[in-house]
Amino acid sequence: VNSKSRDANRPALQPTDSFAVPRYAGLATFMRMPYDPDPADIEVGIVGVPFDLGSSFRSGSREGPAAIREASRGVRLANPGSGVRPYELVDVADVGDIGGNPYDAAATIDQISSFVRRLADDAIWPLALGGDHGITLPILRGLAPFKPIGVLQFDAHLDTFDEFHGSKFNNGTWLRRAHEEGLVDGSRTVQLGLRSWSNGSTDFAFSHDARFTVITHDDYEDLGREETITRIRSVLGDGPVYVSFDIDALDIVEAPGCAGRVPGGLSMRDAQVILRGLTGCRVIAGDVNEVAPWLDPAGITQVNAAYLTFEILCLMAVARARVGRS
Amino acid sequence: VNSKSRDANRPALQPTDSFAVPRYAGLATFMRMPYDPDPADIEVGIVGVPFDLGSSFRSGSREGPAAIREASRGVRLANPGSGVRPYELVDVADVGDIGGNPYDAAATIDQISSFVRRLADDAIWPLALGGDHGITLPILRGLAPFKPIGVLQFDAHLDTFDEFHGSKFNNGTWLRRAHEEGLVDGSRTVQLGLRSWSNGSTDFAFSHDARFTVITHDDYEDLGREETITRIRSVLGDGPVYVSFDIDALDIVEAPGCAGRVPGGLSMRDAQVILRGLTGCRVIAGDVNEVAPWLDPAGITQVNAAYLTFEILCLMAVARARVGRS
Amino acid sequence: VNSKSRDANRPALQPTDSFAVPRYAGLATFMRMPYDPDPADIEVGIVGVPFDLGSSFRSGSREGPAAIREASRGVRLANPGSGVRPYELVDVADVGDIGGNPYDAAATIDQISSFVRRLADDAIWPLALGGDHGITLPILRGLAPFKPIGVLQFDAHLDTFDEFHGSKFNNGTWLRRAHEEGLVDGSRTVQLGLRSWSNGSTDFAFSHDARFTVITHDDYEDLGREETITRIRSVLGDGPVYVSFDIDALDIVEAPGCAGRVPGGLSMRDAQVILRGLTGCRVIAGDVNEVAPWLDPAGITQVNAAYLTFEILCLMAVARARVGRS
Amino acid sequence: VNSKSRDANRPALQPTDSFAVPRYAGLATFMRMPYDPDPADIEVGIVGVPFDLGSSFRSGSREGPAAIREASRGVRLANPGSGVRPYELVDVADVGDIGGNPYDAAATIDQISSFVRRLADDAIWPLALGGDHGITLPILRGLAPFKPIGVLQFDAHLDTFDEFHGSKFNNGTWLRRAHEEGLVDGSRTVQLGLRSWSNGSTDFAFSHDARFTVITHDDYEDLGREETITRIRSVLGDGPVYVSFDIDALDIVEAPGCAGRVPGGLSMRDAQVILRGLTGCRVIAGDVNEVAPWLDPAGITQVNAAYLTFEILCLMAVARARVGRS
Amino acid sequence: VNSKSRDANRPALQPTDSFAVPRYAGLATFMRMPYDPDPADIEVGIVGVPFDLGSSFRSGSREGPAAIREASRGVRLANPGSGVRPYELVDVADVGDIGGNPYDAAATIDQISSFVRRLADDAIWPLALGGDHGITLPILRGLAPFKPIGVLQFDAHLDTFDEFHGSKFNNGTWLRRAHEEGLVDGSRTVQLGLRSWSNGSTDFAFSHDARFTVITHDDYEDLGREETITRIRSVLGDGPVYVSFDIDALDIVEAPGCAGRVPGGLSMRDAQVILRGLTGCRVIAGDVNEVAPWLDPAGITQVNAAYLTFEILCLMAVARARVGRS
Amino acid sequence: VNSKSRDANRPALQPTDSFAVPRYAGLATFMRMPYDPDPADIEVGIVGVPFDLGSSFRSGSREGPAAIREASRGVRLANPGSGVRPYELVDVADVGDIGGNPYDAAATIDQISSFVRRLADDAIWPLALGGDHGITLPILRGLAPFKPIGVLQFDAHLDTFDEFHGSKFNNGTWLRRAHEEGLVDGSRTVQLGLRSWSNGSTDFAFSHDARFTVITHDDYEDLGREETITRIRSVLGDGPVYVSFDIDALDIVEAPGCAGRVPGGLSMRDAQVILRGLTGCRVIAGDVNEVAPWLDPAGITQVNAAYLTFEILCLMAVARARVGRS
Repeated sequence: VNSKSRDANRPALQPTDSFAVPRYAGLATFMRMPYDPDPADIEVGIVGVPFDLGSSFRSGSREGPAAIREASRGVRLANPGSGVRPYELVDVADVGDIGGNPYDAAATIDQISSFVRRLADDAIWPLALGGDHGITLPILRGLAPFKPIGVLQFDAHLDTFDEFHGSKFNNGTWLRRAHEEGLVDGSRTVQLGLRSWSNGSTDFAFSHDARFTVITHDDYEDLGREETITRIRSVLGDGPVYVSFDIDALDIVEAPGCAGRVPGGLSMRDAQVILRGLTGCRVIAGDVNEVAPWLDPAGITQVNAAYLTFEILCLMAVARARVGRS
Repeated sequence: VNSKSRDANRPALQPTDSFAVPRYAGLATFMRMPYDPDPADIEVGIVGVPFDLGSSFRSGSREGPAAIREASRGVRLANPGSGVRPYELVDVADVGDIGGNPYDAAATIDQISSFVRRLADDAIWPLALGGDHGITLPILRGLAPFKPIGVLQFDAHLDTFDEFHGSKFNNGTWLRRAHEEGLVDGSRTVQLGLRSWSNGSTDFAFSHDARFTVITHDDYEDLGREETITRIRSVLGDGPVYVSFDIDALDIVEAPGCAGRVPGGLSMRDAQVILRGLTGCRVIAGDVNEVAPWLDPAGITQVNAAYLTFEILCLMAVARARVGRS
Repeated sequence: VNSKSRDANRPALQPTDSFAVPRYAGLATFMRMPYDPDPADIEVGIVGVPFDLGSSFRSGSREGPAAIREASRGVRLANPGSGVRPYELVDVADVGDIGGNPYDAAATIDQISSFVRRLADDAIWPLALGGDHGITLPILRGLAPFKPIGVLQFDAHLDTFDEFHGSKFNNGTWLRRAHEEGLVDGSRTVQLGLRSWSNGSTDFAFSHDARFTVITHDDYEDLGREETITRIRSVLGDGPVYVSFDIDALDIVEAPGCAGRVPGGLSMRDAQVILRGLTGCRVIAGDVNEVAPWLDPAGITQVNAAYLTFEILCLMAVARARVGRS
Repeated sequence: VNSKSRDANRPALQPTDSFAVPRYAGLATFMRMPYDPDPADIEVGIVGVPFDLGSSFRSGSREGPAAIREASRGVRLANPGSGVRPYELVDVADVGDIGGNPYDAAATIDQISSFVRRLADDAIWPLALGGDHGITLPILRGLAPFKPIGVLQFDAHLDTFDEFHGSKFNNGTWLRRAHEEGLVDGSRTVQLGLRSWSNGSTDFAFSHDARFTVITHDDYEDLGREETITRIRSVLGDGPVYVSFDIDALDIVEAPGCAGRVPGGLSMRDAQVILRGLTGCRVIAGDVNEVAPWLDPAGITQVNAAYLTFEILCLMAVARARVGRS
Repeated sequence: VNSKSRDANRPALQPTDSFAVPRYAGLATFMRMPYDPDPADIEVGIVGVPFDLGSSFRSGSREGPAAIREASRGVRLANPGSGVRPYELVDVADVGDIGGNPYDAAATIDQISSFVRRLADDAIWPLALGGDHGITLPILRGLAPFKPIGVLQFDAHLDTFDEFHGSKFNNGTWLRRAHEEGLVDGSRTVQLGLRSWSNGSTDFAFSHDARFTVITHDDYEDLGREETITRIRSVLGDGPVYVSFDIDALDIVEAPGCAGRVPGGLSMRDAQVILRGLTGCRVIAGDVNEVAPWLDPAGITQVNAAYLTFEILCLMAVARARVGRS
Repeated sequence: VNSKSRDANRPALQPTDSFAVPRYAGLATFMRMPYDPDPADIEVGIVGVPFDLGSSFRSGSREGPAAIREASRGVRLANPGSGVRPYELVDVADVGDIGGNPYDAAATIDQISSFVRRLADDAIWPLALGGDHGITLPILRGLAPFKPIGVLQFDAHLDTFDEFHGSKFNNGTWLRRAHEEGLVDGSRTVQLGLRSWSNGSTDFAFSHDARFTVITHDDYEDLGREETITRIRSVLGDGPVYVSFDIDALDIVEAPGCAGRVPGGLSMRDAQVILRGLTGCRVIAGDVNEVAPWLDPAGITQVNAAYLTFEILCLMAVARARVGRS
């Protein structure tokens, strides 16, 4: 539980009121939430992880957190699908960035784990802005109190390589590694949006062995949204869940600003409806990753990432509100 | 009726012939139609309204009319869905811009009303290129001869605030104000594409009180296109209709160049099919608004706005042709 | 048959291995395949055709081949829908560009025909990167050994004008001309994605006379993907087929970088599913055309073009593998 | 002299007053001047020439005229260096575009000549917005009443090839051809800004034989602005002068939107000071060419082209005012 | 003097150490300085003023402050010309934005004055990030304790209109108004960079009457940098000085992202050398304004604005350090 | 000497002839030179080094080599300042990329050294396309046969940190490290363009101790071009020289596409004149680095980088021609 107890009588933290201060004004924290780099009595912490040393293709997602924050100015307070208003439910703050080291992936990975662990120890649930997908392994390590955790992965790629270019820790291996380390409950793990691989059945071997539920993009279209939601809910069950959203799960037109963009994927609408369909699941943490803003001069990717972050926040807020403010 | 009667024998005005003059050549009027700043014997007038003082978030839609005109070079003369060829039915001209005053929103609003009123008094039906959504109230005022008018609003937002930042007249209040002023027939008004608000039921109170038909984006997907069209036609009935298309009704990928872009919205295909489904409704005026071209370096938004303007033009042409050339 | 016979024992040519050399490294050939400007013992040749003198609207597709090659770095080796792995089936090389003459459309058209004819005579099947749609006529001429060929045309436009601006040979007339020259089997020709014309029934007269199967975008949505695929397969039959993909068949959001972009079209997902549904058809050549990269600063268009090229390659590989390596 | 004589008492034509109508409003004619496609009693005609079939490298300058017009909204009425206020001196109108034929360079070249000749016969001096540099030869042909004319060429390239890719008429040969045709007075011709060639002395042979005054960019820096101006004035003398400004004479940072951009060139300041230094020379026509707007998403090139057009207009206005309104 | 006295022993506030936290990490305050929205014991406050209701041409500078902050991540701590290291001299914080009201220019202007006045009353010297040039009048009002103040204006335009479109308070009138209100000491005021006006001598009448020192861009080139600096120092004298930098004083290539961009202006080098030459002048406040980031997809303008802000900060730090920490 | 001796009678390798094949056609090798990944009898090898793990700020220069190659299509064969025509003097080929490992900076650094060493052992002089400035140390290691070598560094930054973020090998330390390793002759080393540091004299300590000739940008402007050239030539002397051009030595307007862009720097013209002034120096290798193309949608940076590469190539060609073809 949170060591520094919150005053139960104070109202929850709120984003800057857009009726009082126009959306274009004020510092670029996530949704213009209060900035709290040394958080104590909050329940959800938005944390930037500007790390792109895990990318084998394009770099640039180290600039993702700043871009997502800037793009989040326009997001409204209520979820138009689920009706959730997260800031009514929990105390949220933008806790800033885990700076890391641009020359030392291993040290940065450790720093990420430590930072997340400190949040977790204070009963603060983290919601991360990437950075490349290599950030998810250390976040899961930091969430060890919840292990083994169920994972809902949105992704064009499996990310279950054993190694890539000799590296065990990167944006193509994190899920395998997390499973090997016992952080992930394979039977409560779903991979959604898959549509890019090089071989075929062998690529899926690890997922099958680990008992992941694999829903390729073809599968998704066959199932339809409702059945997909039902299946995901069934797999995730009642245990703690981590939602990891690689922005390349989206179609390239929705996310041109990412390293490994792939056509023929999910629309934002798909993602929103699916995520809203999971309201009530025990989502205790998550991330939105692989946003490389300079590849998208119109800034669509970062806006979409901000909205996806809000969707995950809504899930976390409902789950956390059930636990109550400690 | 039109005071300066048209010679019944002259052929209708036509856009520049793309077989004679390549599309990239010639002045940027809408679809390279004749420019007529002092129109008399035309039936539909395309009018630019470069006003963005009604925007609470991003500015820049003052450059919308010029961008839409430039982007309209490629639009073809026949509607591929409804088969309508508007330039065969009515005389259309580009009547230029209502210049307005960059420092005086109130004066500009009056100027817009007066200009539209003059057109209406000459039996010229206006089709406006915005500008932000604040232009619609003064246009409706200018259309007083038709009041109360039915409204078909495409929008991500309700635009029914009572005031915003203390202002009664802006892009978030226009619909409430128009209803209060008796310009709008609430029972013949439809709001479509809604997917962004901050509270929930209270946000919809005005719409319900005013008997607007509210079709959120969720509702739209539940209904499907056909049933949506049926419902809209049923609500609009036989009376005069105004179609107001806020470009943010479209998904962000279709309209990255607007102030308040929101993911998870209508596709152009959705919009086209719905609008074509309304062929025969008595659409006497309309607008396409909130195009802020500098936010979209690929220019998708302005092309889509040009095509939407053409769709509304087709509806107006059919409705006007029934009236006959006076 | 191929005059310089391939050593049956050597393994097929492969793209640069992305596990050994990162995707961002190496020369920009298509999918980093071997470059072979004087090909002999290959089965499929990727050939650039940087020609844009056939465009009546925007120019710039002369830079398409270079852009598509650069964008193809990220394409994976396996088709996620059909499972085809083309480089396991046939020998493919990037044979470079048909340079042409920027001041002489006729000479370039002849050069294209000759080059393709030389490939065809060596039993090398061509897959072309355009260039505007005017390239398809000379390619079909070069494929005379296969004539009359069935054509699957993805396009927003019919391209069946008799002439345009007095020219018989351009991106709006190629299909009529090819049919007139006996290159195309009209009864085995499908036009898909059509949604832009100026008149109506008269525009379709040639297609009907030539017995083309016309599937407008409205038709496509009525039929659905499966029935569309069935119909196409039925029309194409067992004879040789040419797939010509005008990138403007795609919705403008998928292909903002083209001369004649039109909203309300196919998504990449639509195109991918349809093409995958044709696996097994005897596709012996094809092209992806009208990519004008400078109009799309995010580069979506060229990535999509690269993926479409891969889809056509998969069809060709399966068809060619049946023939065997000669 | 002008056949349709102007009423001496009416005030000169003026651009739209920016105190009455904001700069962002109104149709995009050059500097929002009156549009007069059938001009009679004006003295200078701004004419667009959207022709890019003369380009051997990048295409896209066919969209130059529209872009320059749009970018000209911000240009002020007074020349800040020379003090000239052209609209006080002469009647100017935007006479629209010479549409041309996208498939027929020769026909377009003839159309350009005829159009210019008609202007010249009406004593209307033309100022052209290109299009590629191939437009200058036919303009000079149309100016035959003034032949042989002195030419001031701003350019990175010599444009004195005898032929290029077998073509005699393109953006690399126009100056040689014009000299051969007796249109140009070599002894009153200056080439300025040269800094790109492939051989060396042989490249300059034609210029030397034709007695052109060659001022490479190195020469310009050695001479300095004042001496350069003195030399140019001395060469141009009192005869009629044509100013042809290839935008690639400017440094790439000033004109990224052109086919053959070259670093290390003139700044806009250089060009402005030089052109102002020629006030009083008998400049009777000119052009600004090679603006390909899609290559420059920030739009710098087209703004600079608009300002350069204004500079040439100032020179023409002073020269024409001396002649008097006929 | 500052009411809440600072602990003299604590070290000065510092930007985030780029050796500890990479430049791409951390919230986007100016140069990653501490954020202090309720400042007390600081000496210089960086304040954003996202106001663009004073613009008669393009809008969009309301997004300037956020863009400049983001772009300031790369600025180093030492001035390479003057050697000044401002954070060694004074306590600086980013005090956030003056939000204002998007529909009420007058109220926003008052809010700006009040905010600045509160800073001034606490002996905090303000350095503002615009916003359009209309922000300078209310800032000067808030600096009334220093009135009449000398002004160093960098600008392409005079900004001395009496009114524009009927408005007395906008980006074209602020300097006249400030002088009329007695805020500005005309004899200690310099206008530099001027190169855009519509008439000529009449445009300069107010400046002359007010005894401003006018240095047009032509004058600047005639004088050279050293003499310009000497003249400016001589005019500014020993009294308090306000530096107002309209980004359009820079050449368009240095600042494509502004409403009224004009070619042929100052380079950043010019501006830097001039500003460094004023080290020791009693600069007590300043602003950098008219940055409209969406017009510049490469982001050059906002980087330059960040560097100019740093230059002004260096001048203020030296001047303030002389006063001592109160 | 070159182990595989070249046939003295064959003509030198040439870029694709732009009279035969238009510049937009053909694979994107540097200046469309022959591609030779296993070079033997050439004298200069253009080699891409797509490595950006040495960057502490923005990433993305791993895409530099491909972008520079694509942008090099327009470069002409003759140097307009020095008259050098390098392809007449030496055999040049594009030898492709040193792929490296995206997860292992150390391994990539070794791979770079080995590759360069192999070239050097074959008497092939390397000219590298970066990649970040961290590539220069391993290149210098590979050039050990020439050690200690004189270095001409163009750079905004000193790059003489001892370590950065704990790393000894990156784009901020390479020059110190190279000197410590005895690779560089400090007395024959020049640093030019410096204008960004955080402290002052302490930042320069290493350079002074190492006897580097430091020419800050202020120094450069004081000296002027001629004296700067004289001084550089004097320092470089007759020994072997390496030219390392960090693109941020250029002003931000010339190189917006780089990680650490800094205003107030060299123009391309400055760089060209200086480099041409060094004709005859014994430049045996060099690099152009830090080009991050996605930050520059207009592509100016990569064009400038291509031209700078050509300038260095001219120096190398002259120096190598003196040695003779071995």
